[in-house]
Amino acid sequence: MKNLLLSFLATALVVSADEGMWTFDNPPTKLIQDKYHFTLTKQWLDHVRLASARLNDGGSGSFVSPHGLLLTNHHVAREQLQKSSTAQHDYIKDGFLARTPADELKAPDLEVNVLMSTEDVTARIEAATKAAKSPEEEFAARRKTIAEIEADSTKKTGLRSDVVTLYNGGEYWLYRYKKYTDIRIVFAPEAQAAFFGGDPDNFTYPRYDLDMALFRVYENDKPIDTPNYLKWNAKGAADNELVFVSGNPGSTQRLDTLAQLENDRDRLLPNELNLIKSRIAVLEKFSKTGEEHARQASSDIFGLQNALKALNGELQGLENARIMSAKRDDEQKFRAAVLARPELLSKYGTAWDEIADAEKKSASRIKERFYHSTDSRFAGIAMQIVQYVAEIKKPDGQRLPGYHDSQLESLKFELFSPAPIYKDMEIARITGALQLDLQEMGPNDKFLQTILAGKSPQQAANDLVNGTHLDDPALRKKLIEGGEAAVSASTDPMIVLARKLDPMRRELIKWMEDNVQSVEQRAGERIGAARFAVYGKSTYPDATFTLRLSYGTVKGYPMNGTEAPPKTTFYGLFDRAAGFDYQPPFDLPSRIKEGRAKLDLAAPLNFVATADIIGGNSGSPVINKAGELVGLIFDGNIESLVGNYVYDIETNRAVAVHTAAMTEALKKLYGADRVLAELGM
Amino acid sequence: MKNLLLSFLATALVVSADEGMWTFDNPPTKLIQDKYHFTLTKQWLDHVRLASARLNDGGSGSFVSPHGLLLTNHHVAREQLQKSSTAQHDYIKDGFLARTPADELKAPDLEVNVLMSTEDVTARIEAATKAAKSPEEEFAARRKTIAEIEADSTKKTGLRSDVVTLYNGGEYWLYRYKKYTDIRIVFAPEAQAAFFGGDPDNFTYPRYDLDMALFRVYENDKPIDTPNYLKWNAKGAADNELVFVSGNPGSTQRLDTLAQLENDRDRLLPNELNLIKSRIAVLEKFSKTGEEHARQASSDIFGLQNALKALNGELQGLENARIMSAKRDDEQKFRAAVLARPELLSKYGTAWDEIADAEKKSASRIKERFYHSTDSRFAGIAMQIVQYVAEIKKPDGQRLPGYHDSQLESLKFELFSPAPIYKDMEIARITGALQLDLQEMGPNDKFLQTILAGKSPQQAANDLVNGTHLDDPALRKKLIEGGEAAVSASTDPMIVLARKLDPMRRELIKWMEDNVQSVEQRAGERIGAARFAVYGKSTYPDATFTLRLSYGTVKGYPMNGTEAPPKTTFYGLFDRAAGFDYQPPFDLPSRIKEGRAKLDLAAPLNFVATADIIGGNSGSPVINKAGELVGLIFDGNIESLVGNYVYDIETNRAVAVHTAAMTEALKKLYGADRVLAELGM
Repeated sequence: MKNLLLSFLATALVVSADEGMWTFDNPPTKLIQDKYHFTLTKQWLDHVRLASARLNDGGSGSFVSPHGLLLTNHHVAREQLQKSSTAQHDYIKDGFLARTPADELKAPDLEVNVLMSTEDVTARIEAATKAAKSPEEEFAARRKTIAEIEADSTKKTGLRSDVVTLYNGGEYWLYRYKKYTDIRIVFAPEAQAAFFGGDPDNFTYPRYDLDMALFRVYENDKPIDTPNYLKWNAKGAADNELVFVSGNPGSTQRLDTLAQLENDRDRLLPNELNLIKSRIAVLEKFSKTGEEHARQASSDIFGLQNALKALNGELQGLENARIMSAKRDDEQKFRAAVLARPELLSKYGTAWDEIADAEKKSASRIKERFYHSTDSRFAGIAMQIVQYVAEIKKPDGQRLPGYHDSQLESLKFELFSPAPIYKDMEIARITGALQLDLQEMGPNDKFLQTILAGKSPQQAANDLVNGTHLDDPALRKKLIEGGEAAVSASTDPMIVLARKLDPMRRELIKWMEDNVQSVEQRAGERIGAARFAVYGKSTYPDATFTLRLSYGTVKGYPMNGTEAPPKTTFYGLFDRAAGFDYQPPFDLPSRIKEGRAKLDLAAPLNFVATADIIGGNSGSPVINKAGELVGLIFDGNIESLVGNYVYDIETNRAVAVHTAAMTEALKKLYGADRVLAELGM
Repeated sequence: MKNLLLSFLATALVVSADEGMWTFDNPPTKLIQDKYHFTLTKQWLDHVRLASARLNDGGSGSFVSPHGLLLTNHHVAREQLQKSSTAQHDYIKDGFLARTPADELKAPDLEVNVLMSTEDVTARIEAATKAAKSPEEEFAARRKTIAEIEADSTKKTGLRSDVVTLYNGGEYWLYRYKKYTDIRIVFAPEAQAAFFGGDPDNFTYPRYDLDMALFRVYENDKPIDTPNYLKWNAKGAADNELVFVSGNPGSTQRLDTLAQLENDRDRLLPNELNLIKSRIAVLEKFSKTGEEHARQASSDIFGLQNALKALNGELQGLENARIMSAKRDDEQKFRAAVLARPELLSKYGTAWDEIADAEKKSASRIKERFYHSTDSRFAGIAMQIVQYVAEIKKPDGQRLPGYHDSQLESLKFELFSPAPIYKDMEIARITGALQLDLQEMGPNDKFLQTILAGKSPQQAANDLVNGTHLDDPALRKKLIEGGEAAVSASTDPMIVLARKLDPMRRELIKWMEDNVQSVEQRAGERIGAARFAVYGKSTYPDATFTLRLSYGTVKGYPMNGTEAPPKTTFYGLFDRAAGFDYQPPFDLPSRIKEGRAKLDLAAPLNFVATADIIGGNSGSPVINKAGELVGLIFDGNIESLVGNYVYDIETNRAVAVHTAAMTEALKKLYGADRVLAELGM
């Protein structure tokens, strides 16, 4: 851990080698030039940006053919595979291959975004908030201006337009996306090939996973044509090669204040972990009640276990005394630098304490935020419908987050999704969530009393789920189109409940805005400005699920007393399976077990690179200097889980599927000739 | 590390499951019965004991045929392979196989011991030391009595007889060994097959090493005949199977006092690591001066790197605050229990403070003990000759350690060894050692001045090595036989130097005996007795390179965020080699690379078990309930390096070669048909 400390000490003040998730507007051109003697050109950056995609299920992807073939991870595609599966066709378990164009299978509700342009709108927002007399006023003005900017842009360009907050509010940028919603499934291997090693191996390395899937992007019922795709390089990444990662890291807290980190450590993460563990227990119990139930719950369990392991790693990072003491030192140095310059002190000096106060205040209502939940898809839909019809009548700038004009199209796309909702599972989830609410908040809790109205959690769940008709997307559409009148007349028990809970939800949102968010946004902006004043714009902003460029070297690392290799091979897959006597989660799909003799066992399967990534980067392409695809990010190693707070080049590694293994598998195991031809193989 | 703490807390007070290196006189019969429902019978124990062997190069072994075939590790056999190799025949690099009995190659100076009987002699030693009026008197009386017991036994039985100190002196036992000195090499694979992964993979797991070698034990120029051998079970150990390890763990410090552990941490280990690093640097520099030099130095470098990694692991254990605080708690509890009983308090109460005082005193001369060294085989031989001729004239009980009657035969066997000593390497080592002496002790150091006499380290080394004729074993024999007259008349520069250094060496030995050892032996005996009084004889003594029985389960463990498998396979060997592009130390001998198609790649190669072992256990058999051989211990995992001080069942693992892999390799790679037939394969 010595190395972690040393390199971290450099983090906030000077960015270390290979660190950073950089915006395409501020790429690490000089750092790459200095260390790797490679020049990032505008042409290279544009090509990579336009070949990159954001998948709004929560991951990244890249175009790999001129006809819209989109490569991502199996675990990013998993949600759509799950929604497309039935008791008869389990595409998670068995995989999927469209042998003809007509076989390509429409994903129920996946939205894909390609970043077309970005624009700095900091000045416009600053101008709008300048005259505000209180944090609340400033908050309202900022929200209004952002909504205006987004709506203007959508109207003008027809593109999805989002204002993104960078550097804790030191900058605001308008991001414009080309949006695709007709996405079809072309190929997915068996989940057990993609996720061999299961939860134990998740977030670790050495690894042996074929975590890939192929979609195709359609427009007007035809595959798109695009020159912006990454050429498939089947030789793939080599040891010590410079590689790039272009994707959408979800969120990091590297620039957060110490008070925010302490709040994460002491309140947010422990409650979140508690919630997740409870939900996993509920779903695992449900899975045991039948094979079809197990199939229905499998992807949710997968996602929750994934989150559990990731958040545990983050919490361990925050519980690491050396990391926290380095964070403390950094903040002290930063504040001392502000203190030393009167013009900075007067503008920014109190920002840290304001955040600390707001965090303290937020603690008083933290439990409501976690446990006032029914964990129900129906309840979520009902709440969206109830809020939608009310919000839509307000001026755009005054609406709740999620209901701005620029967001409505995506919202409806999801809300009207034909994806199945399983009633038995809904009952199990609601029952479990209410039991947890009861345990955490006690029987006198208003939220709980509103839902239970004297019933047991099980009975309440039964009545709600058996009474609702929200499983029919047509009903959802009818309510939305019917507006407030239709919604207030509805006797659907989920809508009735949402109407009762809506005021409580709004009160909490408002309280958080007034007491926490408005204060922290205002203070954050000033800390962001102070950082620019003290250190210049030499660093990258925290991750925001927007497009970023990372870079680094294909390289092993010291692990558990020895060295982790730069790459693994198919040999290793068979070793690990045999080492556990092929017991789950180390069993092999029969296609692989029986196809062994056909495979080049020495073909590279997975590999690691120093590139700085985080959750949301799943499915990102690994790209060589020539702009070709040489790998597919699918994970970070266990040492990278503290990456939320610090980056350490010694041990932090991105884990990727090698193009050689993908080619080998498509060819010899799956006979995906049509796909291979399209990839130029 | 939480688990480590918890299970350690149980260590000193109550032995935890699978913990312990038990003497065959006090086997963990009840613990095994309770956990595994298996009964250790006298017959089983006798069979295993008589099939086990101690190899005095520093390891263990077992008989695997009725004709004296002795299985051990390649790295235990390595010293003899090195000594048997020449510039023309490099058995380390190329391996060795005796295709006929006549081809079996005599090991130059290996002694093998088989434990025939043991006897508790505590009462006799206690009686002899009872009347002593000071620690020094007691020390002399103890030494005299031990020498008498050993000499009596040797005379009476003809067996090698050693008195062993157990439980810090709580007990003394007489161990009698059948001794063999005609040992021949039958089989050794290439070092790269045995030690694939080199220093990085050493002390780690998953592992892929064929770390085996076969000797044959001769007597009267014929292979011995013995019914006491382990039947070769080629199916080998299975996951979750109960297994036993019978071998000679070298040394542990689990019962040491806190003052002793702190001395290890703050003085002994740092100096030892400094010395080892310097010696490795010297030998690596020497290796670069030519291929033949590299060959000569290879086994010494191997041994030093091995020690460096092991001692670093031990030091990390002592630097771990949780381990030390648990040790402190244990000692406090133990002392409080003594304090609470007046009869114990008066006898034993001051022992801990006496040890602490002695440790403090020893610190004043610690540097001499490490740096008054020439790191020279010649100098060592010369000193032995000079001391031998003086000591032999004294009554047995008054001699320096190593020169008692019972030890002389083994001493001479080593002293007259025909193994080559390389003069160029001697010069490099002496030069390096003197430079380190100079650096650590300064130019006014008496030891250094005696050797240098105005010359540079390099010049002094040249003169000593080029002038000596001690490379001729006949000269050594002549000096020993010529006695003091011959030795004092010798003008051999190494003998001349040894005569000058001898008084300094003796003074330091005497000072240590009077100020440290006598005090610590006396106090140790009392702590040992106090432990029996407080806790009974429910535990095992610290390791003493004497025969012990360990036991446990074949079982993976949590590692680096995931699970280490119970076993690895040949697949994994090829995966790890390919993962590093076959670069050393991950290169494969051509026999393996080219023999790949012949191998069953899924055959188990290495495996792990919870059995509690430590350095010295190398080469120990892994035995099943039926008393058959199912594996061959060759290492501990990185988590086991703190095993010197604590045992943790969660992560401490013994690492073994699987009999399936040994069988597969002997058959398909090495064509060792004669050996296989003898093993019943």
